[in-house]
Amino acid sequence: MKSGNPAFVAIDWGTSSFRGWLMTADGTPLAETRGHEGMLHCATTGFAPVLADHLARLGAARELPVLICGMAGARQGWIEAPYLHTPTRLDALHEGAQRVPTEGDVRILPGIAQADATTPDVMRGEETQLLGVTQADFTGLVCIPGTHSKWVGIEAGVVTSFSTYMTGELFSVIAQHSILKHAVLPDEGMTASDAFRDGLQRARRVPTRLTSALFGLRAAQLLGFQQQADGAARLSGLLIGTEIADAVAQHGTQHPVRLIGAGALGELYAAALQDADLNMTIVDAEQASQRGLAKSAIHLWGGQFS
Amino acid sequence: MKSGNPAFVAIDWGTSSFRGWLMTADGTPLAETRGHEGMLHCATTGFAPVLADHLARLGAARELPVLICGMAGARQGWIEAPYLHTPTRLDALHEGAQRVPTEGDVRILPGIAQADATTPDVMRGEETQLLGVTQADFTGLVCIPGTHSKWVGIEAGVVTSFSTYMTGELFSVIAQHSILKHAVLPDEGMTASDAFRDGLQRARRVPTRLTSALFGLRAAQLLGFQQQADGAARLSGLLIGTEIADAVAQHGTQHPVRLIGAGALGELYAAALQDADLNMTIVDAEQASQRGLAKSAIHLWGGQFS
Repeated sequence: MKSGNPAFVAIDWGTSSFRGWLMTADGTPLAETRGHEGMLHCATTGFAPVLADHLARLGAARELPVLICGMAGARQGWIEAPYLHTPTRLDALHEGAQRVPTEGDVRILPGIAQADATTPDVMRGEETQLLGVTQADFTGLVCIPGTHSKWVGIEAGVVTSFSTYMTGELFSVIAQHSILKHAVLPDEGMTASDAFRDGLQRARRVPTRLTSALFGLRAAQLLGFQQQADGAARLSGLLIGTEIADAVAQHGTQHPVRLIGAGALGELYAAALQDADLNMTIVDAEQASQRGLAKSAIHLWGGQFS
Repeated sequence: MKSGNPAFVAIDWGTSSFRGWLMTADGTPLAETRGHEGMLHCATTGFAPVLADHLARLGAARELPVLICGMAGARQGWIEAPYLHTPTRLDALHEGAQRVPTEGDVRILPGIAQADATTPDVMRGEETQLLGVTQADFTGLVCIPGTHSKWVGIEAGVVTSFSTYMTGELFSVIAQHSILKHAVLPDEGMTASDAFRDGLQRARRVPTRLTSALFGLRAAQLLGFQQQADGAARLSGLLIGTEIADAVAQHGTQHPVRLIGAGALGELYAAALQDADLNMTIVDAEQASQRGLAKSAIHLWGGQFS
């Protein structure tokens, strides 16, 4: 961590995790705190004591303002920070921040909703990452892999549309609870292997065939064409490939793509996006949240920072 | 049940169910027996005692031949009846029957495998239903809805290709184990409602978008566009619609379709196939098995029947 004067506290408060940083006026992190006290935990313990505990760990002075993004602002969170609706400018996120009726100046950034009946969708936490990884005039796509992967279309700094794919969650429930539990080894390390790429290619070739290709994983092993050791990589390739095929069908391949990646999953997506001929830049997920919080904090309180 | 002389016993022995019929020489059922002693149960108790018990319930004479289809012929079943490989004539199924080394003349019909590395697939039990619902020169498609739905292409009585969709199983694991458990009520009665048809239409409009449309079910309820009471019907519509869209892309709509339907699920598929402009005939699933077993039994032993 760098040195400098603390000006505010930035917090990414998710469903099952808490990450906080003590930040300088220009958005440089000075200290960090992490915990498992996510929204679900705080539903029983309350949010204020968890925040107080983490502020103490950061050594944050009581008068420092605190900016939060993520599920703490959901209806079932601390207080609701109502969704902004697409189309919405990323650099106006801070205008939707809700002040929490608690000690000090604590505010929660809003999520973004696509409130139309045909393609309804919501995000909460990712909007702050989007702000963090884009310039004010950015035009292109952002891909945020995860339990619920997001593809976001941005035009000159305005979020115009987005889609959430249940890719990560489907991987888990299919591998654990369906007949494919016999075809996928648990805790298998995952790399962009030949088996993963084969899954990608199958999905790209016939992107409507996912629910049949899944059974094919089992059949291929029964018939001796594939090995159980490759099952998880193929399943991952099919699901990620199906996601990308639909995103490409929707947006084309001409736009630059920011991939907000983390660890092994980020590497799988990077390989998959390259396979799909997308013009991609990888950016770090945690830095994305930090920078988005910092940009919003500077909008909100920049004039007060000494 | 009709009267007549018993000539053989027909058994559909699945993963978790047992159904048997005492049959006349022309394939008319005289008596029926049912139980939950499927393959999984028999893996611990053995198969022979279960069969003896059900033959006694049927009042079957010991010298009557017994013909079995289904998972009893799997590798992990009683004895393996190796898969026939596509393309294969349905009226030659009996040639692949394996005799069980047990008291009396007991044979198990084979399953069918599509043993190619690109579209590997297997069936066991459904092949007997196919034989039961088609004439010797049938050309067209057969759809068998279920946990693992099958679409089978048949040309002049030859199974040329087939695809298994994990539709029913995905419905269960998604409704029970994913975030959509908050969007789907358990034990909801299912009919071809407007919500079901809306799911079908979404799938038909963009059949590559399933994994995103699933999240959309949750988002639509959060945003107030849809009701939880309709969640199961919409989920079912999305999954069945995706299956049918891929089957239609593969086979077109010009072929006659035999729908081997049972109960509420059969009615959902009937509505969905009509929506997709398929020329469909509904046939009863249990009669399909009975007739397929009877046709094969007559091939095997018809000369001996008095």
